[in-house]
Amino acid sequence: MGNIFGTLFRITTWGESHGGGVGVVVDGCPPGLPLAPEEIQVELDRRRPGQSSIVTQRKESDVVTIYSGVYRGKTTGTPISMMTPNVDQRPEAYDEMRTRFRPSHADFTYQRKFGWRNPEGGGRSSARETVGRVAAGAIARKILQAAGGVEISAFVQRIQDIAMPDNQGFPSREEVEGNPVRCPDAETAARMEERIRRIRKEGDSVGGVVECRVRGLPVGLGAPVFDRLEADLAKAMLSLPATKGFEIGSGFGGTLLKGSEHNDPFERREGRTRTVGNRAGGVLGGISSGEELRFRTAFKPTATILKTQKTVSESGEETEIRGKGRHDPCVLPRAVPIVEAMTALVLVDHWMLHHAQCGTFSFE
Amino acid sequence: MGNIFGTLFRITTWGESHGGGVGVVVDGCPPGLPLAPEEIQVELDRRRPGQSSIVTQRKESDVVTIYSGVYRGKTTGTPISMMTPNVDQRPEAYDEMRTRFRPSHADFTYQRKFGWRNPEGGGRSSARETVGRVAAGAIARKILQAAGGVEISAFVQRIQDIAMPDNQGFPSREEVEGNPVRCPDAETAARMEERIRRIRKEGDSVGGVVECRVRGLPVGLGAPVFDRLEADLAKAMLSLPATKGFEIGSGFGGTLLKGSEHNDPFERREGRTRTVGNRAGGVLGGISSGEELRFRTAFKPTATILKTQKTVSESGEETEIRGKGRHDPCVLPRAVPIVEAMTALVLVDHWMLHHAQCGTFSFE
Amino acid sequence: MGNIFGTLFRITTWGESHGGGVGVVVDGCPPGLPLAPEEIQVELDRRRPGQSSIVTQRKESDVVTIYSGVYRGKTTGTPISMMTPNVDQRPEAYDEMRTRFRPSHADFTYQRKFGWRNPEGGGRSSARETVGRVAAGAIARKILQAAGGVEISAFVQRIQDIAMPDNQGFPSREEVEGNPVRCPDAETAARMEERIRRIRKEGDSVGGVVECRVRGLPVGLGAPVFDRLEADLAKAMLSLPATKGFEIGSGFGGTLLKGSEHNDPFERREGRTRTVGNRAGGVLGGISSGEELRFRTAFKPTATILKTQKTVSESGEETEIRGKGRHDPCVLPRAVPIVEAMTALVLVDHWMLHHAQCGTFSFE
Amino acid sequence: MGNIFGTLFRITTWGESHGGGVGVVVDGCPPGLPLAPEEIQVELDRRRPGQSSIVTQRKESDVVTIYSGVYRGKTTGTPISMMTPNVDQRPEAYDEMRTRFRPSHADFTYQRKFGWRNPEGGGRSSARETVGRVAAGAIARKILQAAGGVEISAFVQRIQDIAMPDNQGFPSREEVEGNPVRCPDAETAARMEERIRRIRKEGDSVGGVVECRVRGLPVGLGAPVFDRLEADLAKAMLSLPATKGFEIGSGFGGTLLKGSEHNDPFERREGRTRTVGNRAGGVLGGISSGEELRFRTAFKPTATILKTQKTVSESGEETEIRGKGRHDPCVLPRAVPIVEAMTALVLVDHWMLHHAQCGTFSFE
Repeated sequence: MGNIFGTLFRITTWGESHGGGVGVVVDGCPPGLPLAPEEIQVELDRRRPGQSSIVTQRKESDVVTIYSGVYRGKTTGTPISMMTPNVDQRPEAYDEMRTRFRPSHADFTYQRKFGWRNPEGGGRSSARETVGRVAAGAIARKILQAAGGVEISAFVQRIQDIAMPDNQGFPSREEVEGNPVRCPDAETAARMEERIRRIRKEGDSVGGVVECRVRGLPVGLGAPVFDRLEADLAKAMLSLPATKGFEIGSGFGGTLLKGSEHNDPFERREGRTRTVGNRAGGVLGGISSGEELRFRTAFKPTATILKTQKTVSESGEETEIRGKGRHDPCVLPRAVPIVEAMTALVLVDHWMLHHAQCGTFSFE
Repeated sequence: MGNIFGTLFRITTWGESHGGGVGVVVDGCPPGLPLAPEEIQVELDRRRPGQSSIVTQRKESDVVTIYSGVYRGKTTGTPISMMTPNVDQRPEAYDEMRTRFRPSHADFTYQRKFGWRNPEGGGRSSARETVGRVAAGAIARKILQAAGGVEISAFVQRIQDIAMPDNQGFPSREEVEGNPVRCPDAETAARMEERIRRIRKEGDSVGGVVECRVRGLPVGLGAPVFDRLEADLAKAMLSLPATKGFEIGSGFGGTLLKGSEHNDPFERREGRTRTVGNRAGGVLGGISSGEELRFRTAFKPTATILKTQKTVSESGEETEIRGKGRHDPCVLPRAVPIVEAMTALVLVDHWMLHHAQCGTFSFE
Repeated sequence: MGNIFGTLFRITTWGESHGGGVGVVVDGCPPGLPLAPEEIQVELDRRRPGQSSIVTQRKESDVVTIYSGVYRGKTTGTPISMMTPNVDQRPEAYDEMRTRFRPSHADFTYQRKFGWRNPEGGGRSSARETVGRVAAGAIARKILQAAGGVEISAFVQRIQDIAMPDNQGFPSREEVEGNPVRCPDAETAARMEERIRRIRKEGDSVGGVVECRVRGLPVGLGAPVFDRLEADLAKAMLSLPATKGFEIGSGFGGTLLKGSEHNDPFERREGRTRTVGNRAGGVLGGISSGEELRFRTAFKPTATILKTQKTVSESGEETEIRGKGRHDPCVLPRAVPIVEAMTALVLVDHWMLHHAQCGTFSFE
Repeated sequence: MGNIFGTLFRITTWGESHGGGVGVVVDGCPPGLPLAPEEIQVELDRRRPGQSSIVTQRKESDVVTIYSGVYRGKTTGTPISMMTPNVDQRPEAYDEMRTRFRPSHADFTYQRKFGWRNPEGGGRSSARETVGRVAAGAIARKILQAAGGVEISAFVQRIQDIAMPDNQGFPSREEVEGNPVRCPDAETAARMEERIRRIRKEGDSVGGVVECRVRGLPVGLGAPVFDRLEADLAKAMLSLPATKGFEIGSGFGGTLLKGSEHNDPFERREGRTRTVGNRAGGVLGGISSGEELRFRTAFKPTATILKTQKTVSESGEETEIRGKGRHDPCVLPRAVPIVEAMTALVLVDHWMLHHAQCGTFSFE
């Protein structure tokens, strides 16, 4: 269980790192949306390993096939099944992983929870499962663009201690894709890239922070008290591999301010009721306020490192393990499209939920 | 919608700040649990306004009644309905709020989303709705104690810039309840209390961080890929009023480390496979690891302040608003039992989910 | 678990036959609906015991209170909590039930499933739990009327072997309420009433069939493949106490026909595409067709009879039990408003679901 | 939406009659279950067209592939994705269906609900979607057998007016599979087969009733008040194409009896508390009683007939349509494995639900 996400726009992902493939079924997609496989593929290519020299060189072409739910180029409202086969499989590379728990990976907990696991490449706990999320998110993103002009832009805000300057403008796709780090500030990106290259040579890894911004959202998305928009975004982000934190708007830093400094007064601007600042990050009381959505997600340094580490075997002996071959010294550049995908999924779901309650009936 | 939480141990909360009362229905409670109203009341009393001089002086006795689901002192497995009436109602205090949006409150978004709202005391967006959460959480907590010896301890870790020393031992209930701030470090608590008193005099407010620790959990709770334990905890925390961030284990700070510094190697300890450190915060791959669960939640400074602020009226005129009467200069002391309640709810739900999948059938 | 119904318009019911009361929380109600307690009360009064000489004489005034979710006479979109206290409690009447399983009641299975049960009046398994359904259904019904002019009319179609003539016109509320049996055919109603009176004197009971018709529905409600409209109606009906069967349109009888006799050809009528007949009962492929919805529910004879029956005690001894006091010789007249309530709940939920998927976004 | 079934053992089905294929993802399968593709295939072969001369001759080999969730022959607790490609596609056969609504099919309602549909072979409304249900059901069935010795046996009880004698013993797989009709009474089966052959020659169709029996169930499955076992079985059955009714135990016929005739007294038998009869059909108060589960489902005569029928075109013109080529004069023999599959899915889900609430914690 745990492999279905969403209430109305629901996705079911499946697949392991090694085996037949990875995929997703989208249930609840609105009908009539023009959709071509290329629109899915472009997002998968952003997530794909081997796309630049600073990410893992695992070779995965990750070509997606749409098996259902689309007829003559338009969605029919029935489930959309998508799949990409696994091609670069080298199960022999995982012999050691069969019996020794990799530190800070899920081997140990999967073994204890389920009693039986697929150890090849981490099986279901591999970040390869996010292929399904990105494929489904590409559809959600298209819906947001087509119907509401909503733009989602995530980017690498910080790698280790190298951070972008705060409060830049809304980053364009071109700016984000302009360098392999996916940091829209070119100067910062260069320093980040250098750090990642150095860390890779050390056989070590680094983490950092991905920021996500959304503009063009209507007021009203979010269903308090439990299904607040930020609560569902937090869940979406913390459901991603390697994440350790989430903050929206002023976040943890905002706790240093006094209420009189932190509050966002209202004003009239551009003919609308707006807030002067946006420490709230685009939500008030769990509901989108019409301001730009802004949140950040912390990704820990990649657990796989090319160093010898102490560990314990399945049979309970203290031993050592050493990562080898290809590894990803920093997952953040590839995390950017995944963060965007999850964001799009949450937003479409909440848009539909809001419309269901507040737009189905009229009592005038 | 949005007022039901959980999959198997499901709670439905209801009620507004003013009106008939606030309550909760718990569906899915295991049968046979000894349960007395006093066990609910003790937690409600920790949440209650007016319990000390540093929190709001709103008078609410918040006496809970159990209406169903318990027979002769034991749960029957049928829904448990609990309610506390609203007593300290002064609707006239809210005349200004009817027509002017309070900055950084939910007035504006509720009005726009629903078109019709109860403005008295914030209606459903009032933190008073957490009464239902705490009442339900008291049952979840009792289950964890009775069945598994699981202990949950939340506490105020930081107020504005005044933080507790890191990595103290597991705080006892006595230590947490030993001062009105609910910070188990007495020296830090004194400084926090002083800060809160000063801020109250200014008519201003402060925020901070609540930390929560859980010990005694078995390995195996959490349902990847979407319903990871930390994902559901993040959602639970961000569903609380005034929260802006969540982090587990090393959190945002952990992103400054290298993988070789951050990883938690395994070792044998006390006859079990354990991790040497606990930067993971008690989860691996979304599943509890058997180590202590540790996470933090950021609470913004209270939005209500006794100062004049700019705002806009419902009819779209720029105007001013000034909070008056009783206000809560710092919600964190009262947030502690609420954080514990939500944590208990998530844990019981995941315990049941885990058992359903991995403990119902045996295929030997 | 099992006490929450619906996906978007979700109700949580609670309460036992004896104890604090019975109630319901409605989550997901559209905002802005004018709603007065009297509109709930009128439906509860139709369900109430003691309303005529042919139903149980248990005295329950069943006065409903709305505790939340309505402000100045209009719904706010937040949870609506409603409750009616239990007043006519005579726990001493149930001493025998504590230790002896009543045949064809739920005593035995509740005891075995939960290990601990409230035996007074059947506890949660009492039909008294339907108070919450009727209260919530009254709101759903109002929504259907206010927004779409949808009319729901259930009635007693058969008592034992006494059946109404087939294919009468759509029965009005006046016709249904015109006699205590709630059979709109006066002549049949008289015979049914006589039968029920005779059976009551014998201390025995009878069952029969309730038919439900809905007119004014739009085309499009229902979510194949699993959440077909008829599937959710079937679930709703079989979730009622004492039900043993459900059929829609031609039902079981339709299986005697050949396809050429059973099919409903399309034609143009009143400017719309309509079916000539309606053996389908208002659904095609799980989706409402715009024709009148027609389905029937079988209710078994009441299990409580004033006769001595063989049974077994909780401790496993063969023994006897004899119903005494007040009993309901035929539940069907009181089942009519309950069937309508459940129907309204299913329809509003599906209306919202349909709108969410097919009405939220436009891709032109 | 509407393509996910179950709460804990959840299946997501996808696919249309024509297109890439049909499939299913099973989320929540217990880990450690030995599972081979052949065990899925054997059930798909029972559902397959062309298996005998009395069903449709559409050629579908329906070879299943398991893509995930199984490692070295045992389930891992992660999602199991299964797929069978579509092979016998003749889209040109459906030219007429593109523009003319087939009577008593879903063409009209899909067109109106979604605005855009796949008309080839009925698209998603084709009974071909049940491939996914049968594949998932085969796993559920294996779980029931492996863990609890539960046996499920469905069979054709009636074709049009040709019915089996009542109250036969529990039919074995051999008896059911002993003839192409899947009626365990050989003499009745012969008459049914003759009827179907005659009807096929007429280009017409017939319906009937499938009965399902389950033995070996424990007491306790079912979650009142809404998720009664019979309610979820009713939903499961009415979610199948061409179904018009459901009854459990005495069903509609039981309404002709008096309570004193209908009640099932308890007795001690084989060291257990049992009911003397089983008019209840194996459930009491929505919970399995330990007696044999017995229910029936009505299937209407196949809508596709080789006769000219009146209809209306998409553009609103009255016209005619005539089915051609291969058709299924009677779906019931192929419905038998589908009924069994849905039954198994409901039972495994409820077994897990019951265990979660009543077996996770102990409070002694």
